[in-house]
Amino acid sequence: MHDPVESFRRVRVRRFSRAGAGTDDDVAATEEPLEIRLHGKPFVVTMRTPGRDRELAAGFLLSEGIIRSADDIGAVEHCRHPQRPEVHNIVDVYLVGDAAATLAARLEARRNVVTTSACGLCGRVTIDSLRAQAPRVASTMRVLPTFVASLPARLREHQHVFSETGGLHAAGLFGIDARCDGSAEDVGRHNAVDKIIGARLLEARVPIADRALVVSGRASFEILQKAWMAGIEIVCAVSAPSSLAIELAEEAGITLLGFVRDGGFNLYTHSTRVEGM
Amino acid sequence: MHDPVESFRRVRVRRFSRAGAGTDDDVAATEEPLEIRLHGKPFVVTMRTPGRDRELAAGFLLSEGIIRSADDIGAVEHCRHPQRPEVHNIVDVYLVGDAAATLAARLEARRNVVTTSACGLCGRVTIDSLRAQAPRVASTMRVLPTFVASLPARLREHQHVFSETGGLHAAGLFGIDARCDGSAEDVGRHNAVDKIIGARLLEARVPIADRALVVSGRASFEILQKAWMAGIEIVCAVSAPSSLAIELAEEAGITLLGFVRDGGFNLYTHSTRVEGM
Repeated sequence: MHDPVESFRRVRVRRFSRAGAGTDDDVAATEEPLEIRLHGKPFVVTMRTPGRDRELAAGFLLSEGIIRSADDIGAVEHCRHPQRPEVHNIVDVYLVGDAAATLAARLEARRNVVTTSACGLCGRVTIDSLRAQAPRVASTMRVLPTFVASLPARLREHQHVFSETGGLHAAGLFGIDARCDGSAEDVGRHNAVDKIIGARLLEARVPIADRALVVSGRASFEILQKAWMAGIEIVCAVSAPSSLAIELAEEAGITLLGFVRDGGFNLYTHSTRVEGM
Repeated sequence: MHDPVESFRRVRVRRFSRAGAGTDDDVAATEEPLEIRLHGKPFVVTMRTPGRDRELAAGFLLSEGIIRSADDIGAVEHCRHPQRPEVHNIVDVYLVGDAAATLAARLEARRNVVTTSACGLCGRVTIDSLRAQAPRVASTMRVLPTFVASLPARLREHQHVFSETGGLHAAGLFGIDARCDGSAEDVGRHNAVDKIIGARLLEARVPIADRALVVSGRASFEILQKAWMAGIEIVCAVSAPSSLAIELAEEAGITLLGFVRDGGFNLYTHSTRVEGM
């Protein structure tokens, strides 16, 4: 078996190009399921690139509203297979204090978001349920357009596995000094964001002030949900935002930028954080 | 409120480029939640681009192993909001015959995939559970390398919303005459595949023989799972496959091609369906 924390695997391929056909060695981004448990009970399974699973679990639980800070976590443990200690595809999270006391109620409430939505389920319901969990983000950050435009190139400096495989989403946090304060790559775009937010949470550094979140692909509902729960003020996507991502950003007070590439960008919401826009 | 079946929405943006800044009208790909119910009970919520929701539900249930053919479906209904008849964000599916009789058992089995996986959860378990549900795909299709290389350009001819928004994944089915036999665009890559497979299922045309599936992005676990359950022999991705996608394709008997672009491609599994490779 393969080492489960390797981020890519070697594969044999047949290549075809205008120049002809041949056989070659190549690498593919590793994708494996991770099960996140709460107090030993299965909560969710996500397909992810192995590595930094504890951070992934912490970030995921923050965006789901199950935890709010490091104080809510008693332990985050990899569950080991008795015969195969190298397998790390389950993380078990134990809550403490209020979070533990209200876990049952929160799970029930979360369940009810689905079951009581009746036929009114729409983006509005989704936004309302998020607004109930988190306040609008703070507004302390001011950046220059040239700073925003520089971020995708800075993120690429941290995309080591992508350069090997072409197969991963990346996300990073950047301060106004343009230094990277955490980055991750994953086959799932939401996992990359969970890993960097979760790392901050485990260090008791949420909400995340004075950092812009940069994602290598599109900005979807999930990305904005995670940014909102983490208190991130600026989200930059190299590709397009969805309609619901824009609505969520508007509601959360987040500055959302898309198509950040080729020295330019589109600015969708809360433009006052970008000088001159 | 917006028309829920519109595939994009108008948005106002501030644009920044090397030439300067300005305000403009633009469009964003619509993203809304869809709840799929079974016999009135919530089964899953997916974020999707509205439209062809019945097909999406049918395709999703096929890939989950809940249904196997159109014969298993008694009805697929949009649930209407009493005050807002234009809202179509819930689809309710009623099963008949064996599928209805075994629904409870299947849901239990599906639940057990998670709950009994213990610490052995890995790609192997995932592959084993899929193999239990579907046989290897047939092998009837033979194609030329130049046919494969032509598919992304043919798919782009059907990517109408992408050309407006830059924000959607696309998928299409192509026969060896290179004619498109169904295509879809969606904010979720797996939804686009569900919509075209679901359309075939509702027409009682699964398993899908003699058609190659083309996807505009990466090939993940989910894409290969859906192709396997639908009996598709060839999967072509414009971008990279994940390690688990390659393993699934190998196991399912599917010919998997990645980086299908610029007149070339990489061939990962079951190369005999591509002439001369």
